[in-house]
Amino acid sequence: MQYTLYDYLPSGNGYKVRLTAKYLNIPYRLVEVDILKRATRTPEFLEKNPNGRIPLLEIEGRGFLWESHAIISFLAEGSELMPADPWQRARVWQWLSFEQYNLEPNVATVRFWVGIQRKTAAELGDRLTEKVARGYEALAVLETGLQGKEFLVADRFTLADISLYAYTHVAAEGGMSLDDYPRIRAWITRVAAQPRHAPITAG
Amino acid sequence: MQYTLYDYLPSGNGYKVRLTAKYLNIPYRLVEVDILKRATRTPEFLEKNPNGRIPLLEIEGRGFLWESHAIISFLAEGSELMPADPWQRARVWQWLSFEQYNLEPNVATVRFWVGIQRKTAAELGDRLTEKVARGYEALAVLETGLQGKEFLVADRFTLADISLYAYTHVAAEGGMSLDDYPRIRAWITRVAAQPRHAPITAG
Repeated sequence: MQYTLYDYLPSGNGYKVRLTAKYLNIPYRLVEVDILKRATRTPEFLEKNPNGRIPLLEIEGRGFLWESHAIISFLAEGSELMPADPWQRARVWQWLSFEQYNLEPNVATVRFWVGIQRKTAAELGDRLTEKVARGYEALAVLETGLQGKEFLVADRFTLADISLYAYTHVAAEGGMSLDDYPRIRAWITRVAAQPRHAPITAG
Repeated sequence: MQYTLYDYLPSGNGYKVRLTAKYLNIPYRLVEVDILKRATRTPEFLEKNPNGRIPLLEIEGRGFLWESHAIISFLAEGSELMPADPWQRARVWQWLSFEQYNLEPNVATVRFWVGIQRKTAAELGDRLTEKVARGYEALAVLETGLQGKEFLVADRFTLADISLYAYTHVAAEGGMSLDDYPRIRAWITRVAAQPRHAPITAG
């Protein structure tokens, strides 16, 4: 199957897809899209994804698939990154959902505002304070989830680790600290030691 | 398998699970939890779900599963609600992710503030205006997704329809109108006509 990935390299959501493809040795053509120039909101892009977001995967002969977690689940189906056991699969979905609802909208947004758009705390005001507080709440849940574990699900590296790692390991770019989360820090080291690991902005 | 569902009946996220279980004839014991009294933030509840939220499924002999989409995916695996074809499965995941990131945080939050907590527009100010605008953006994407379709994926009723239906069909409780979304209105009628359908607050 021939894949084209529309992506913005600093994106953690895109990174989830790139890391999954790299781990599974799945080749793809990369088309970089500059979200800062609103290149995902053009009529041409909206034809591909009406939600106007990257990552977007084009699958030759099939069409377009959007949403990072849908893309990585599609790529990883049947591989060692997605357990076959129904209960373990469900735990992977649980962590993906948690990432998307509690961690990403806070930790990733803070990084985007502060680290990428270079907005100041004074400009952002209460919106920043609230996102930071909720981001730390999400990190605390992740810290609890890692209790007694090397990886989040099934004692091995899965999509859950890829998803949660994507924005957690760059939380500092938004000014957030992992000092109070020793299990997260140790787990970040383990994830980065996986075979075929690559840094976030590698295409 | 013996299931216990911890839930709050007005919750659309809980409704996704109840509707899936009803459709698949899966019995469960219901434990109602009053989120307005912060009953999901007690030490006892946080032991079950460190993220402090309903719906929460307890599976006898297994443990606890949180996150509505993880729970419905677990319950529906192998059933007609979850396609076996990898591409169609991926499209279901795409719509679940979209619901969770773009529709729920806006349409459901507006309904919670206005319809359940009974806060006024004056109290809520800009936060309400922003959530309403983003909610309508999400509804526009859903309207586009329904173009030429009876249901969202695979020409039949799947988890994608259950998930998107949950908060969309009660958008008016938050003061949001579906007048500009004729495909959504027709699809709501089709979903409500499915066998074993039940209203949102039915346990």
